[in-house]
This record gives sequence, C-alpha cells and structure tokens, in this order.
Amino acid sequence: MIWLHIIADLKQVDFSKLDLDEKTLKDFISEQIKSVWLTELGSFYYTFNKKNEITCVVALAESHIAFHSWPEKSYISMDAFVCNFSRDNSEKLKKIYRNFINFFKPWEVDERFIERKS
Amino acid sequence: MIWLHIIADLKQVDFSKLDLDEKTLKDFISEQIKSVWLTELGSFYYTFNKKNEITCVVALAESHIAFHSWPEKSYISMDAFVCNFSRDNSEKLKKIYRNFINFFKPWEVDERFIERKS
Repeated sequence: MIWLHIIADLKQVDFSKLDLDEKTLKDFISEQIKSVWLTELGSFYYTFNKKNEITCVVALAESHIAFHSWPEKSYISMDAFVCNFSRDNSEKLKKIYRNFINFFKPWEVDERFIERKS
Repeated sequence: MIWLHIIADLKQVDFSKLDLDEKTLKDFISEQIKSVWLTELGSFYYTFNKKNEITCVVALAESHIAFHSWPEKSYISMDAFVCNFSRDNSEKLKKIYRNFINFFKPWEVDERFIERKS
C-alpha cells in the first residue's frame, strides 16, 4: 500500500505580517485536520523566546503533522504524513498542505511528495 | 544551511518478539535523544487497541521524531529531522536511527536521507 508524506520547506515567509502564537497555530492546524475529516489524537506545542518561533507535533489516527518556524531565517518546515488503511487520504493531505501555503504565503517553496510503502 | 531528515519504513518487523507499551517506547526514545545530547521539549504518545500498536510524536529543540507501529502489517514508520543551527547534528540523528534499526530489527528497510535547506 502506498502512503503519502509531504515534506515542505517554506522560505522567505514574511513573519512581520504574522502574529503567531500557540493558540492561533493550534486552532489553525486543528481546523485543517477537522475540515478533511482526519482524526487528531493529541499534540505538543512549544513557543521559543522569539516572537513567532513555535514548534509543534500533532499525532493523527492516520499518522502525523509537524511544524517548526524560524522567524530569523524567514523559514518554516512542514511535514505531513498519512496512511491509507480504510481509504485514500492523499487528497486530504494535499488540501491541508495547500491551505498551509495559502496561510503562510512563502515566496519560495521546496516541496517533496514522497510515496512510502508499508 | 543543510539539515538532515531521515524517513524510514521498517518492514517485516517481528512483533511477536516485542512487548511494546508506551512506557517502554518513551523510555527508549528519550534515552536515544539524551544519549546524543539533543533536547526533548515534549511529546505525545497514544496506544491503539491492538498490542504493540503505538503512535508518538516527539518535539525536539532541534525539530522532531515521529514513530508509528502497525503490528498487523509488521511495519513501523520512523521519521527524524534535525536542524543544525549551532552545530551539525546529522551524525547524532544517524546514530539514533541506527539504534532504532538495532532495536526493532526489521528484515527490510526503505530508508531515505533527505537534505532540507532553510
């Protein structure tokens, strides 16, 4: 069975236009997960000392999402992996990914769509 | 700056020889992180209904580790990503990865060492 893992490096993000705190990010990510009917099991969020510098890992019944922001590098790393046991979740993951891009508006993205096999 | 992300699909894992619960897995992963002087910020662990079926996400100051086991498929997915702001952490990540392989002893592994750029 083939499962999708998206690895994305969001570059030249304009953090001056963001006001990112744990609650905003948590609400955004949880909303994305709900909107495509994936299941969030739990998560861990952590805010560093600098404004907008947050890291989080989110466990899904279908695998995980990870997000790390580095404002001083204008950079965000995003990872999202879903398994497809009961149905193909790849399109759901791509939708979440597009919404991340629309939300954070990087000027440049390195994206990799990786097919994993169990 | 180039950062290492390891994506590994551990196949044909003999779960009959494992007795994996949240505490065992958490102790193992936390010990791996400490042994190479990386910094664990927090984590979320979840046990499904089947024996040995566990999912976890671990936030590091240097990024994250994610682990999901599917005993009925004899399969484990492992992800580990580290940034290298103050020093090159790639060798540390490779060491953790080798220890995962030694611990879970899959008969087959698909491993990808992905270079990410900020």
